Amino acid sequence: MTTFTDVTIDKKANVYFEGRVTSRKITFADGSYKTLGIMLPGTYEFSTAAREEMDITAGKLRYKLAGGDWETIDGSGVFYVPANSTFSLEVETVTDYCCTYLED
Amino acid sequence: MTTFTDVTIDKKANVYFEGRVTSRKITFADGSYKTLGIMLPGTYEFSTAAREEMDITAGKLRYKLAGGDWETIDGSGVFYVPANSTFSLEVETVTDYCCTYLED
Repeated sequence: MTTFTDVTIDKKANVYFEGRVTSRKITFADGSYKTLGIMLPGTYEFSTAAREEMDITAGKLRYKLAGGDWETIDGSGVFYVPANSTFSLEVETVTDYCCTYLED
Repeated sequence: MTTFTDVTIDKKANVYFEGRVTSRKITFADGSYKTLGIMLPGTYEFSTAAREEMDITAGKLRYKLAGGDWETIDGSGVFYVPANSTFSLEVETVTDYCCTYLED
Protein backbone atom coordinates (compact mmCIF):
# COMPACT_ATOMS: atom_id res chain seq x y z
CA MET A 1 0.00 0.00 0.00
CA THR A 2 1.49 3.31 -1.15
CA THR A 3 1.39 5.97 1.54
CA PHE A 4 2.54 9.56 1.93
CA THR A 5 4.24 10.22 5.27
CA ASP A 6 4.76 13.32 7.39
CA VAL A 7 2.07 15.28 5.61
CA THR A 8 -0.46 17.82 6.76
CA ILE A 9 -4.01 17.25 5.61
CA ASP A 10 -6.88 19.70 5.60
CA LYS A 11 -9.80 18.31 7.59
CA LYS A 12 -12.25 19.92 5.18
CA ALA A 13 -12.74 18.32 1.77
CA ASN A 14 -12.84 20.10 -1.58
CA VAL A 15 -16.24 19.38 -3.13
CA TYR A 16 -17.04 19.91 -6.81
CA PHE A 17 -19.95 19.01 -9.12
CA GLU A 18 -22.35 18.43 -6.20
CA GLY A 19 -20.01 15.91 -4.60
CA ARG A 20 -19.38 13.86 -7.73
CA VAL A 21 -15.79 15.01 -7.54
CA THR A 22 -14.16 15.50 -4.14
CA SER A 23 -10.59 15.76 -2.94
CA ARG A 24 -8.36 16.25 0.09
CA LYS A 25 -5.30 18.50 0.04
CA ILE A 26 -2.11 17.09 1.53
CA THR A 27 0.91 19.35 2.10
CA PHE A 28 4.45 18.12 2.41
CA ALA A 29 7.24 19.48 4.63
CA ASP A 30 8.79 21.28 1.66
CA GLY A 31 5.53 23.16 1.06
CA SER A 32 4.55 21.24 -2.04
CA TYR A 33 1.11 19.69 -2.07
CA LYS A 34 -1.05 17.12 -3.80
CA THR A 35 -4.76 16.42 -3.81
CA LEU A 36 -6.14 12.93 -3.36
CA GLY A 37 -9.53 12.70 -4.95
CA ILE A 38 -12.47 10.62 -6.11
CA MET A 39 -14.49 11.14 -9.29
CA LEU A 40 -17.80 9.42 -9.84
CA PRO A 41 -18.91 8.52 -13.37
CA GLY A 42 -19.70 11.64 -15.34
CA THR A 43 -18.36 14.29 -17.69
CA TYR A 44 -16.28 17.09 -16.25
CA GLU A 45 -14.15 19.99 -17.36
CA PHE A 46 -11.34 21.38 -15.21
CA SER A 47 -8.92 24.25 -15.56
CA THR A 48 -5.37 24.43 -14.29
CA ALA A 49 -3.18 27.13 -12.87
CA ALA A 50 0.09 25.23 -12.34
CA ARG A 51 1.02 22.31 -14.56
CA GLU A 52 -0.60 19.16 -13.16
CA GLU A 53 0.28 15.49 -13.00
CA MET A 54 -2.93 13.47 -12.88
CA ASP A 55 -2.05 10.04 -11.47
CA ILE A 56 -5.02 7.71 -11.81
CA THR A 57 -4.70 5.18 -9.00
CA ALA A 58 -7.75 3.19 -10.07
CA GLY A 59 -10.55 3.75 -12.55
CA LYS A 60 -11.52 3.95 -16.18
CA LEU A 61 -11.83 7.29 -17.92
CA ARG A 62 -11.10 9.24 -21.08
CA TYR A 63 -9.31 12.57 -20.98
CA LYS A 64 -8.83 15.29 -23.54
CA LEU A 65 -6.28 18.06 -23.21
CA ALA A 66 -6.95 21.39 -24.89
CA GLY A 67 -6.36 20.84 -28.62
CA GLY A 68 -5.68 17.14 -28.10
CA ASP A 69 -7.46 13.90 -28.87
CA TRP A 70 -9.41 11.74 -26.44
CA GLU A 71 -7.12 9.31 -24.64
CA THR A 72 -8.17 6.37 -22.46
CA ILE A 73 -6.88 5.26 -19.08
CA ASP A 74 -8.24 1.92 -17.90
CA GLY A 75 -7.14 0.82 -14.47
CA SER A 76 -4.25 3.14 -13.76
CA GLY A 77 -2.08 5.65 -15.60
CA VAL A 78 -0.69 9.16 -15.58
CA PHE A 79 -1.20 12.21 -17.77
CA TYR A 80 0.04 15.77 -17.61
CA VAL A 81 -1.95 18.94 -18.10
CA PRO A 82 -0.17 22.15 -19.06
CA ALA A 83 -0.38 25.18 -16.79
CA ASN A 84 -3.19 27.71 -17.39
CA SER A 85 -5.09 25.23 -19.51
CA THR A 86 -8.27 23.15 -19.45
CA PHE A 87 -8.98 19.47 -19.78
CA SER A 88 -12.09 17.36 -20.20
CA LEU A 89 -12.85 14.06 -18.57
CA GLU A 90 -15.35 11.35 -19.32
CA VAL A 91 -15.25 9.17 -16.20
CA GLU A 92 -16.67 5.70 -16.79
CA THR A 93 -16.05 4.07 -13.37
CA VAL A 94 -15.44 5.43 -9.85
CA THR A 95 -11.93 6.86 -10.15
CA ASP A 96 -9.37 7.37 -7.41
CA TYR A 97 -6.70 9.92 -8.33
CA CYS A 98 -3.70 11.80 -7.00
CA CYS A 99 -2.99 15.23 -8.51
CA THR A 100 0.42 16.84 -8.16
CA TYR A 101 0.89 20.53 -8.88
CA LEU A 102 4.20 21.06 -10.67
CA GLU A 103 5.79 24.47 -10.09
CA ASP A 104 7.99 24.52 -13.21
CA MET B 1 -8.77 25.77 8.52
CA THR B 2 -8.42 22.69 10.75
CA THR B 3 -5.56 20.45 9.68
CA PHE B 4 -3.96 17.26 10.94
CA THR B 5 -0.17 17.40 10.88
CA ASP B 6 2.57 14.78 10.70
CA VAL B 7 0.22 12.08 9.49
CA THR B 8 0.61 9.23 7.05
CA ILE B 9 -2.10 8.88 4.46
CA ASP B 10 -2.89 5.91 2.29
CA LYS B 11 -2.78 6.89 -1.38
CA LYS B 12 -5.64 4.51 -2.15
CA ALA B 13 -9.16 5.52 -1.14
CA ASN B 14 -11.74 3.35 0.63
CA VAL B 15 -14.76 3.13 -1.67
CA TYR B 16 -18.21 2.00 -0.52
CA PHE B 17 -21.70 1.96 -2.04
CA GLU B 18 -20.37 2.38 -5.60
CA GLY B 19 -18.48 5.51 -4.67
CA ARG B 20 -21.33 7.22 -2.88
CA VAL B 21 -19.29 6.91 0.30
CA THR B 22 -15.51 7.21 0.13
CA SER B 23 -12.81 7.87 2.67
CA ARG B 24 -9.07 8.24 3.22
CA LYS B 25 -7.25 6.72 6.18
CA ILE B 26 -4.81 8.94 8.05
CA THR B 27 -2.48 7.43 10.66
CA PHE B 28 -0.86 9.43 13.45
CA ALA B 29 2.59 8.98 14.95
CA ASP B 30 1.09 7.19 17.96
CA GLY B 31 -0.49 4.60 15.65
CA SER B 32 -4.03 5.86 16.07
CA TYR B 33 -5.95 6.65 12.91
CA LYS B 34 -8.95 8.46 11.54
CA THR B 35 -10.79 8.35 8.25
CA LEU B 36 -11.76 11.51 6.39
CA GLY B 37 -14.73 10.81 4.18
CA ILE B 38 -17.49 12.05 1.94
CA MET B 39 -21.04 10.73 1.79
CA LEU B 40 -23.37 11.61 -1.05
CA PRO B 41 -27.12 11.80 -0.42
CA GLY B 42 -28.53 8.36 0.24
CA THR B 43 -29.41 5.78 2.86
CA TYR B 44 -26.62 3.69 4.33
CA GLU B 45 -26.01 1.19 7.08
CA PHE B 46 -22.59 0.72 8.66
CA SER B 47 -21.20 -1.60 11.27
CA THR B 48 -18.45 -0.86 13.76
CA ALA B 49 -15.66 -2.84 15.34
CA ALA B 50 -14.13 -0.23 17.67
CA ARG B 51 -16.26 2.53 19.18
CA GLU B 52 -16.43 5.40 16.70
CA GLU B 53 -16.68 9.16 16.94
CA MET B 54 -18.45 10.46 13.83
CA ASP B 55 -17.54 14.14 13.50
CA ILE B 56 -19.68 15.73 10.79
CA THR B 57 -17.63 18.60 9.39
CA ALA B 58 -20.35 19.74 7.00
CA GLY B 59 -23.64 18.30 5.83
CA LYS B 60 -27.21 17.44 6.78
CA LEU B 61 -28.14 13.91 7.75
CA ARG B 62 -30.14 11.80 10.15
CA TYR B 63 -28.53 8.96 12.08
CA LYS B 64 -29.97 6.09 14.07
CA LEU B 65 -27.94 3.99 16.48
CA ALA B 66 -28.99 0.39 17.13
CA GLY B 67 -32.07 0.56 19.35
CA GLY B 68 -32.09 4.36 19.23
CA ASP B 69 -34.25 7.04 17.65
CA TRP B 70 -33.49 9.03 14.53
CA GLU B 71 -31.40 12.10 15.34
CA THR B 72 -30.62 14.99 13.01
CA ILE B 73 -27.34 16.79 12.35
CA ASP B 74 -27.64 19.89 10.19
CA GLY B 75 -24.38 21.63 9.36
CA SER B 76 -21.97 20.07 11.82
CA GLY B 77 -22.07 17.88 14.89
CA VAL B 78 -20.69 14.77 16.53
CA PHE B 79 -22.17 11.43 17.51
CA TYR B 80 -20.72 8.26 18.98
CA VAL B 81 -21.37 4.70 17.88
CA PRO B 82 -20.73 1.84 20.30
CA ALA B 83 -18.22 -0.85 19.40
CA ASN B 84 -19.45 -3.96 17.58
CA SER B 85 -22.68 -2.25 16.64
CA THR B 86 -24.50 -0.91 13.59
CA PHE B 87 -25.89 2.47 12.66
CA SER B 88 -28.10 3.80 9.89
CA LEU B 89 -27.72 7.05 8.04
CA GLU B 90 -30.09 9.05 5.89
CA VAL B 91 -27.79 11.57 4.21
CA GLU B 92 -29.67 14.57 2.81
CA THR B 93 -26.77 16.72 1.50
CA VAL B 94 -23.16 15.98 0.51
CA THR B 95 -21.55 15.30 3.87
CA ASP B 96 -17.90 15.69 4.84
CA TYR B 97 -16.97 13.67 7.92
CA CYS B 98 -14.06 12.65 10.13
CA CYS B 99 -14.32 9.29 11.88
CA THR B 100 -12.14 8.49 14.89
CA TYR B 101 -11.76 4.93 16.10
CA LEU B 102 -11.70 4.88 19.90
CA GLU B 103 -9.76 1.99 21.40
CA ASP B 104 -11.48 1.98 24.81
